[in-house]
Amino acid sequence: MEHNGRDEIKVENGCGFEDDHEQKRREKEEGLSVERIFENQEVPSWRNQLTLRAFVVSFVLSILFSIIVMKLNLTTGVIPSLNVSAGLLGFFFTKTWTKFLEKSGLLKQPFTRQENTVIQTCVVASCGVGFSGGFGTYLFGMSEIVAKQTTDDSGAFKNPSLSWIIGFLFVVSFLGLFSVVPLRKIMIVDFKLTYPSGTATALLINSFHTPAGAKLAKKQVRVLGKFFTFSFLWSFFQWFYTAGDGCGFDNFPSLGLKAYENQFFFDFSSTYVGVGMICPYIINISVLLGGILSWGLMWPLIDTKKGDWFPADLKPNSLHGLQGYKVFIAIALTLGDGLYNFFKVLSQTLAGLFYQFRRRYVINALPIADRSSPESSRISYDDQRRTQLFLKDQIPTWFAIAGYVAIAAISTATLPQIFHELKWYYILVIYIFAPILAFCNAYGCGLTDWSLASTYGTLAIFSIGAWAGSSQGGVIAGLAACGVMMNIVSTASDLTQDFKTGYLTLSSPRSMFVSQLIGTAMGCIISPCIFWFFFKAFKDIGTPGSEYPAPYAAVFRNMAILGVEGFSALPKNCLYLCYGFFGAAILINLIKDSLSKKWAKFIPNPMAMAIPFYIGSYFAIDMCVGSLILFIWEKIDKAKADAFGPAVASGLICGDGIWTLPSSILALAGVKPPICMKFLSRGTNSKVDAFLGS
Amino acid sequence: MEHNGRDEIKVENGCGFEDDHEQKRREKEEGLSVERIFENQEVPSWRNQLTLRAFVVSFVLSILFSIIVMKLNLTTGVIPSLNVSAGLLGFFFTKTWTKFLEKSGLLKQPFTRQENTVIQTCVVASCGVGFSGGFGTYLFGMSEIVAKQTTDDSGAFKNPSLSWIIGFLFVVSFLGLFSVVPLRKIMIVDFKLTYPSGTATALLINSFHTPAGAKLAKKQVRVLGKFFTFSFLWSFFQWFYTAGDGCGFDNFPSLGLKAYENQFFFDFSSTYVGVGMICPYIINISVLLGGILSWGLMWPLIDTKKGDWFPADLKPNSLHGLQGYKVFIAIALTLGDGLYNFFKVLSQTLAGLFYQFRRRYVINALPIADRSSPESSRISYDDQRRTQLFLKDQIPTWFAIAGYVAIAAISTATLPQIFHELKWYYILVIYIFAPILAFCNAYGCGLTDWSLASTYGTLAIFSIGAWAGSSQGGVIAGLAACGVMMNIVSTASDLTQDFKTGYLTLSSPRSMFVSQLIGTAMGCIISPCIFWFFFKAFKDIGTPGSEYPAPYAAVFRNMAILGVEGFSALPKNCLYLCYGFFGAAILINLIKDSLSKKWAKFIPNPMAMAIPFYIGSYFAIDMCVGSLILFIWEKIDKAKADAFGPAVASGLICGDGIWTLPSSILALAGVKPPICMKFLSRGTNSKVDAFLGS
Repeated sequence: MEHNGRDEIKVENGCGFEDDHEQKRREKEEGLSVERIFENQEVPSWRNQLTLRAFVVSFVLSILFSIIVMKLNLTTGVIPSLNVSAGLLGFFFTKTWTKFLEKSGLLKQPFTRQENTVIQTCVVASCGVGFSGGFGTYLFGMSEIVAKQTTDDSGAFKNPSLSWIIGFLFVVSFLGLFSVVPLRKIMIVDFKLTYPSGTATALLINSFHTPAGAKLAKKQVRVLGKFFTFSFLWSFFQWFYTAGDGCGFDNFPSLGLKAYENQFFFDFSSTYVGVGMICPYIINISVLLGGILSWGLMWPLIDTKKGDWFPADLKPNSLHGLQGYKVFIAIALTLGDGLYNFFKVLSQTLAGLFYQFRRRYVINALPIADRSSPESSRISYDDQRRTQLFLKDQIPTWFAIAGYVAIAAISTATLPQIFHELKWYYILVIYIFAPILAFCNAYGCGLTDWSLASTYGTLAIFSIGAWAGSSQGGVIAGLAACGVMMNIVSTASDLTQDFKTGYLTLSSPRSMFVSQLIGTAMGCIISPCIFWFFFKAFKDIGTPGSEYPAPYAAVFRNMAILGVEGFSALPKNCLYLCYGFFGAAILINLIKDSLSKKWAKFIPNPMAMAIPFYIGSYFAIDMCVGSLILFIWEKIDKAKADAFGPAVASGLICGDGIWTLPSSILALAGVKPPICMKFLSRGTNSKVDAFLGS
Repeated sequence: MEHNGRDEIKVENGCGFEDDHEQKRREKEEGLSVERIFENQEVPSWRNQLTLRAFVVSFVLSILFSIIVMKLNLTTGVIPSLNVSAGLLGFFFTKTWTKFLEKSGLLKQPFTRQENTVIQTCVVASCGVGFSGGFGTYLFGMSEIVAKQTTDDSGAFKNPSLSWIIGFLFVVSFLGLFSVVPLRKIMIVDFKLTYPSGTATALLINSFHTPAGAKLAKKQVRVLGKFFTFSFLWSFFQWFYTAGDGCGFDNFPSLGLKAYENQFFFDFSSTYVGVGMICPYIINISVLLGGILSWGLMWPLIDTKKGDWFPADLKPNSLHGLQGYKVFIAIALTLGDGLYNFFKVLSQTLAGLFYQFRRRYVINALPIADRSSPESSRISYDDQRRTQLFLKDQIPTWFAIAGYVAIAAISTATLPQIFHELKWYYILVIYIFAPILAFCNAYGCGLTDWSLASTYGTLAIFSIGAWAGSSQGGVIAGLAACGVMMNIVSTASDLTQDFKTGYLTLSSPRSMFVSQLIGTAMGCIISPCIFWFFFKAFKDIGTPGSEYPAPYAAVFRNMAILGVEGFSALPKNCLYLCYGFFGAAILINLIKDSLSKKWAKFIPNPMAMAIPFYIGSYFAIDMCVGSLILFIWEKIDKAKADAFGPAVASGLICGDGIWTLPSSILALAGVKPPICMKFLSRGTNSKVDAFLGS
């Protein structure tokens, strides 16, 4: 599941146009136009925006964020938006670099906001591959470890290996880029879609490059650095106490042993406290609600039916037992929410397009001529200047189409070599529909900030899985198809998001495109390497209850099995429960959308609720602690909390994330932590004391 | 060991007179006289200073602080000055009380600073009994538990029992008060001794009753309340994880298992972090140095001589083995420091007295006439007004003498009933010398803020112990004599300290005296009850390594044994080491006194160094953490740290201290904590896992 820290639908008039008014209102409030501040500053040519230093900094940050994304992939699958952190750290590193060069007299080119945008784009593209590469979802779902947990039918598996993963990513990751390039003007200039994350990042980068903003940024970086150090040292400290399973702060029964058994405890993870600070309150509350509903209520109740609904002598993680309920009810809830939002965004997209047509915009994107808008007299100085620069550097449409066709051809030829189950005609079908879905996702993301890449991936799983059938190895085919689809759809929305950021920071679309290309290429190498590192360092990746359970790998595989086999594998009454939760997810969304905005924000999010169903609610408590800290901070000093909250959260996430690097090196080197911090009940403790005494 | 948070010698001209200039200088700096602010405020008569509400508040606070003092007594024996907390909380409670009454219209009398002083005096007197009652030293040293640890000779013991302890305290605690009453004018008005703690408390109380001060006090109380709550909840949380020995945060090997074995670890005790924030940096550093020297260096080295210097097959806490070195080297260091300071303070006292004589003050205290000083024309308005009010309410000298003789007579008759080993003629001798020593201590404390009560007690142990001899039960006699001496000497210095506070806040000496009497009486009941509570609730009090090891009980008993038996009981080479450390203590003090003030503050304090010798250095680490927090805070914001540091520290100490109340109730009720947080090495852990798995 990926969300960008917002899940509220921004559009109330049925289309994306209030953004325009919104922006003008903001300008009026601020009393001046943003671009007037930068008026005297020359915009570098697109080639000069792509500096070597930008890519060196991007490479370093890509490694940092890829580690974090990988860790999140493999622990819970909840990934917050890292755009702001990437923008902030990019600014910090390049600023330090240029300061250093300035002193030594070697500086040839000042550090501009365009360069900052290039770095941010490159980093987000690179670590985006960490998400869409499916290391926590479809790709790892093919592995033997996960296959053994499901053990239903063929038991077909394809274990990860560095070579085929890199090859696979290279042939599928660039298609998305080429598919949306021709449509950028429509979405950015004509439709003026919101892209909340992209806009927020652009505002941040713009602010950094004003004198007052630079000062604030410096302070934010200092706060980030402090919490980074704290979080890193804290993780380091925790490491010493983890000799053995069930040891250490990860297993601290901070709410009592009974609650611990049901996965309710605060596990002192600074990552998820940080994630909780970034995610909106309602997401954190939803996760906690989901945890209480599932581990606090449903699983204990279902467990009492042991021997009746399902055999009592099953292994604890057999899908025919309690585990089955956990997985499939979670899938039902996710699917319900995903499908609802898919149809909602689709209908909004269609309605929006219809509205555009009615306003007599010629949605004929090929070829794009530099037409001045009929409303140009009305638009602000900012918009004029931005549009002018956005349209200056063209990317020829023939180049985009040729690129798409060429890569699709290579890909169609190569993929069946990697996955024998994935026939070339499946791929061809995907590539025919993909541009449409990519546009849908880019448009939907522009409206709602919600990338539905996972949902489109799920559609591919079911359709291709069912088409291939079980005898043909439908499970692997479905998962591989999911990968192809997710990569296209996800990079398409990322790129369009970046175009928006580029538009607002006067960065050339060409430099954005090149930066995204280079970032994606980096990601195709960095992410598999980091995954490989984790995979080799931590032997129990993918095992439920371990440090890296990679919960969504099993979920994705089970969806593929469901697609291939139908509902026959489910334990008793599980299907009815699934129907119930599927319906409930849709109902909750309907209620949310029918309420006024004031009340809608109190309605929980079904997808967020589904996460703890499978993996337990300890991280929900971490996230709520993060929320609580932010809430109290906002009560005490709203301005400071708003200015430094994201920096604190980023510091917490990055510090803990980076610790995984030395920690996996230690694991690879065979250095084991010396102490076990164990939690025993009083009775067990006296037994152990007697044992140790004798 | 008791120190009041300062151990620097204030006097540089050989007498206590620069205090006067100091005060005038301060007045000039502040631009106005303190008493001018209060000029319009009527000073209530001494009877009106002693209100019922004052004593109700005092009673509540006495219980609070007695619990804290008892806890400190029984854990490490380090007791910081609680005067400031008592003043602050007294202000808070009475202010709340009067505010409440003001609203209901029932307020008859406004809350004055004199009443505040009365409360502070009463509370300090009451919890002073908790220290001088010897619950962590001589009195508990008589018990069977401690006797069993030493097991040298007769093995004579007298187990604590509520009845005889209360009786004992009542007959010895009031003598000190009567012994210094006649000398108060000399020490306060004529000699103008400094009494740093008393002066600080008076300044605090004065500041509370100005409008700006009241506002600051309110903020301080809020900070105190916050940290009180935090500390209380933290202790509560810790409790859950202490099912069994060696469980919980008290045994957290935060610096590794190897360091833990040598007693180096941070034990998360908020009390000692608070204590560290109150004690001066050099004390904390000294304690840590002592810990490193002893547990880091000497004990491991001596342990390698096992089988050579001492038999290898001894019980771990036998005094003939390593434990002997720990105890007796600590005693040597304490004695060296104590004796050096005793002779130094004595010589200063004599020099001071000689100087007074030369200035033709007639040191003929009996009877005191209301003479105006020959220098009255020179003295400030503040001094005039304070002296006038201080001399207004007299306590007749005949009353003081009669009181002393009467109580001494009762005491001489009663004490041999309680301790059969303590003959009436021993007591008589003590009572003849006691007033002189009481004066010495009161005078020395006025100069240096350092009460040497423990040292005077030690003198009594050695002299009476040697006189009684082993056949006559010299150990018990020595310890009992120590108690008699300590109570007199300690209450004498407390009362004079309070007279100084009273002098500076225009409180009547009579109200101070009565308040001290009532406070002492309260203490004589409250402290034994609280001790009894601890004794019944925690079964392993006095056992080394337990939660309440009461380390000084064994130290005092061993001193008594040493006095009775001589050095025959010591293990090999221990005596030479003791000589060395005794000499080193004196040498360190000589070096400190010979250096300029600038450098002297970097010389460690031998008495502080001796504390961890016996009990380990975990609390030294807590205290240094407290120091570090304060240090960083002062670096960031000196003004805020100065204003709120003591409040934070008091909050931490009080919160943790008060938790012992519910904790002992839980222990008495048989409610045991549910979880054990255990720390095992990796090897042991895998054994335990195998054991629990099977």
